[in-house]
Amino acid sequence: MATPNPERRSERARQAILDAALELCLKHTYGGLTMEGIAKRAGVGKQTIYRWWPSKAAILLEALQERGGSTLIFPDTGNLKADLRAQMNQVVTAFTDPTFAAYSGGLIAAAQSDPDIAAAVVASIIKPRVDLCVERLQKAQQAGELRPDVNLPDLVELLYAPLYYRLLLHTRPVSKSQVTTILDLALNGATADKN
Amino acid sequence: MATPNPERRSERARQAILDAALELCLKHTYGGLTMEGIAKRAGVGKQTIYRWWPSKAAILLEALQERGGSTLIFPDTGNLKADLRAQMNQVVTAFTDPTFAAYSGGLIAAAQSDPDIAAAVVASIIKPRVDLCVERLQKAQQAGELRPDVNLPDLVELLYAPLYYRLLLHTRPVSKSQVTTILDLALNGATADKN
Repeated sequence: MATPNPERRSERARQAILDAALELCLKHTYGGLTMEGIAKRAGVGKQTIYRWWPSKAAILLEALQERGGSTLIFPDTGNLKADLRAQMNQVVTAFTDPTFAAYSGGLIAAAQSDPDIAAAVVASIIKPRVDLCVERLQKAQQAGELRPDVNLPDLVELLYAPLYYRLLLHTRPVSKSQVTTILDLALNGATADKN
Repeated sequence: MATPNPERRSERARQAILDAALELCLKHTYGGLTMEGIAKRAGVGKQTIYRWWPSKAAILLEALQERGGSTLIFPDTGNLKADLRAQMNQVVTAFTDPTFAAYSGGLIAAAQSDPDIAAAVVASIIKPRVDLCVERLQKAQQAGELRPDVNLPDLVELLYAPLYYRLLLHTRPVSKSQVTTILDLALNGATADKN
């Protein structure tokens, strides 16, 4: 008979902890989020949480990876602009969700003074999404739709950076009409036609 | 005889406080910056600081406005691409300065959970710079260099957002070669030539 592993996470407790972290982050902002608060809300001991996660940032990262999964599907219908628009609109939907904005903003805030959090955000959230977009752009470049000299990770950055800019600098609301403008400028260029 | 105003800021003390805030922010990160620490380092009483500024964020904002002045000069030589490159390279120089990165990162982190700080960053740092760039782009658009249908604030966002993206998400270092790529893509577009 197998010995039960006392260190094994209870899936129900794990989900309760992720839920609690997201709810409290929305209610009190990231700055007001504490391990004690999460434990109380989730109905578990603080030691249980510390056994599984070193920090509140680690809990939010896990929640973001797990619940932000939908933006990991990159469409491929053969129409590059339509596929980019569909995927970027998914990002807009995520960025305009108040819960998402609260915890992603909190994580990125924490990343400014903690290089470990910054590296974890890049490795677990940003990079997998950039890689998928590069893959889709590669097919378009091979099909002759994109200039052969375009560096694809740089193009991904140009497409997505304006969404992060509004999310983090709070200049204007992130929006689907913004996606239309970004795609027009990045694909066609701002320079007047020389003809 | 005029009565001296006891509320009048001593310029020397003010500069000492800005210096202290910047030095301590670089040394301890924004999270470790305190009003007590700034007062001690600047050799003034904590009450003096609180009389002039409501928070450490307000001190850093004033420092950023005052010391980040160089990026408020927008060149106009008649060559749009060269002017944009010169100005964007100035921003790269600021973003790659460790002191600037520490305090601007700290301010933007604070903005994620404090809408007043977010609004102050936009009003005093971002907007004046966007306005100057829009002015320069307007001349280019009137001269027929840019497509007449391009929304200029949206173009400014496309040009500068990738610099903020790297500064805040810590994916790759902000660099002058990045400026070359951004200008090529944003002005010429990524789509292959249809000819």
